[in-house]
Amino acid sequence: MRNIHHVQVLWPDCDPAGILFNVNYYRWMDDATFYLFEKAGLPWDELKARYGAPGVPLVSSHADFRSPAKFRDKLAIESEIAEWGNSSFKVSHVFRIGDRVAAEGWERRIWCIADPVDPAKITPAPIPDDVRKALGG
Amino acid sequence: MRNIHHVQVLWPDCDPAGILFNVNYYRWMDDATFYLFEKAGLPWDELKARYGAPGVPLVSSHADFRSPAKFRDKLAIESEIAEWGNSSFKVSHVFRIGDRVAAEGWERRIWCIADPVDPAKITPAPIPDDVRKALGG
Amino acid sequence: MRNIHHVQVLWPDCDPAGILFNVNYYRWMDDATFYLFEKAGLPWDELKARYGAPGVPLVSSHADFRSPAKFRDKLAIESEIAEWGNSSFKVSHVFRIGDRVAAEGWERRIWCIADPVDPAKITPAPIPDDVRKALGG
Amino acid sequence: MRNIHHVQVLWPDCDPAGILFNVNYYRWMDDATFYLFEKAGLPWDELKARYGAPGVPLVSSHADFRSPAKFRDKLAIESEIAEWGNSSFKVSHVFRIGDRVAAEGWERRIWCIADPVDPAKITPAPIPDDVRKALGG
Repeated sequence: MRNIHHVQVLWPDCDPAGILFNVNYYRWMDDATFYLFEKAGLPWDELKARYGAPGVPLVSSHADFRSPAKFRDKLAIESEIAEWGNSSFKVSHVFRIGDRVAAEGWERRIWCIADPVDPAKITPAPIPDDVRKALGG
Repeated sequence: MRNIHHVQVLWPDCDPAGILFNVNYYRWMDDATFYLFEKAGLPWDELKARYGAPGVPLVSSHADFRSPAKFRDKLAIESEIAEWGNSSFKVSHVFRIGDRVAAEGWERRIWCIADPVDPAKITPAPIPDDVRKALGG
Repeated sequence: MRNIHHVQVLWPDCDPAGILFNVNYYRWMDDATFYLFEKAGLPWDELKARYGAPGVPLVSSHADFRSPAKFRDKLAIESEIAEWGNSSFKVSHVFRIGDRVAAEGWERRIWCIADPVDPAKITPAPIPDDVRKALGG
Repeated sequence: MRNIHHVQVLWPDCDPAGILFNVNYYRWMDDATFYLFEKAGLPWDELKARYGAPGVPLVSSHADFRSPAKFRDKLAIESEIAEWGNSSFKVSHVFRIGDRVAAEGWERRIWCIADPVDPAKITPAPIPDDVRKALGG
């Protein structure tokens, strides 16, 4: 179970050095995780009704920038769940331009549920079996 | 009643032509209106409790780009309410680098209140007198 | 000659009110104009070599926000050149979610050429006939 | 040698969960490094003329998100060079809201110089002594 999400590097994504500004990779990791969940039949805006989960919060993230991307480059972002914990999981992302790796990164996220009485109170919870299964775990 | 908000043009705000990308002006108009309201003693996150108003939604905006801004330029954004309607108002913004005008723009916003029963239902409402007064109207 | 560019409203595009933040429309107008030029066979990074034109700078822009867009909404952006001047032109954009109009906007841009000796010196120039024709003018 | 850069969490920085969207931390690390260099008397747009260095490219970055930041929160970002290599260095950043840590992160950057004949050709180079000294190394 993995997903490939495609983006094109556009003019305002690039900095005065003419290359893709690094922060966009983090934005696109978030987008790519969203699309991985979509493919798994787990749209983020339905997680609350189905599981009491107000999203899948990020606890840490990381990226290594291998080679520059330029205006009009087309990136394929390959995403999958690389590690499963009890309530946390790691999503890995590889950004490719053709065969060349432009960047690699990962996000650690936690499964959590909102208190039914006070929705602002959020606590980590075991990842439901069907969520794990849908995502290939 | 007017406010001057200062921003500096940073590296990722600029595009490969080496100049400030135009969309940032719209982001900064929104920020400048927030600070105008702050100065008037009307923090946006207190409008709901005080007036039942879930923010001041934008209905249209406009900008004229006069001269380019560059990396490290310091912009002074002068903002004031330029027009008052019954439930709508226009915020004008002038962006200056020293004496030179980099851009001018405006936002039309409406005062509205959320339905107490269904908060997603929002309707325009007359601008309260003390809000108008605090903003110089 | 018109182009339809598709975008999906993602999580970070939305604000705490849960709706698409207005500034994204301006970013997407810029993207939509880029794709209109692509469709016309006029990729922006080839304009310099082919015409001595360092891009098509924006001189003003405007948007009217008709109805809110939400997380996961799919927007179709219909773009075309709505007015031709000698060296300036207006690009119109309509954002639709299904049949509903979410926003309408336009950009005024100028055709200009860089001085061959000092590339930072840019002056408006008549729009070449083949550019106009490729864009439906 | 360290710098503290201040930012305020504004409306469009927050997501529909009402909290600061994580990607902004990466943007602000880049900004904070820029201001650390400013304080050290090393403005990024003068590095080329003074050292032949076209910026200080990022090779990797990382962040741990400790506690949520909200609309109107004021963040103090404390930045310093945490590690020195021969041509690479690590910038650490701590984001605080009052005494509470909202996030911690770091960037690994390399010192490099552009080929005088072909400026697009960039190679790592030893960090000049005065640069290292100015930054507290």
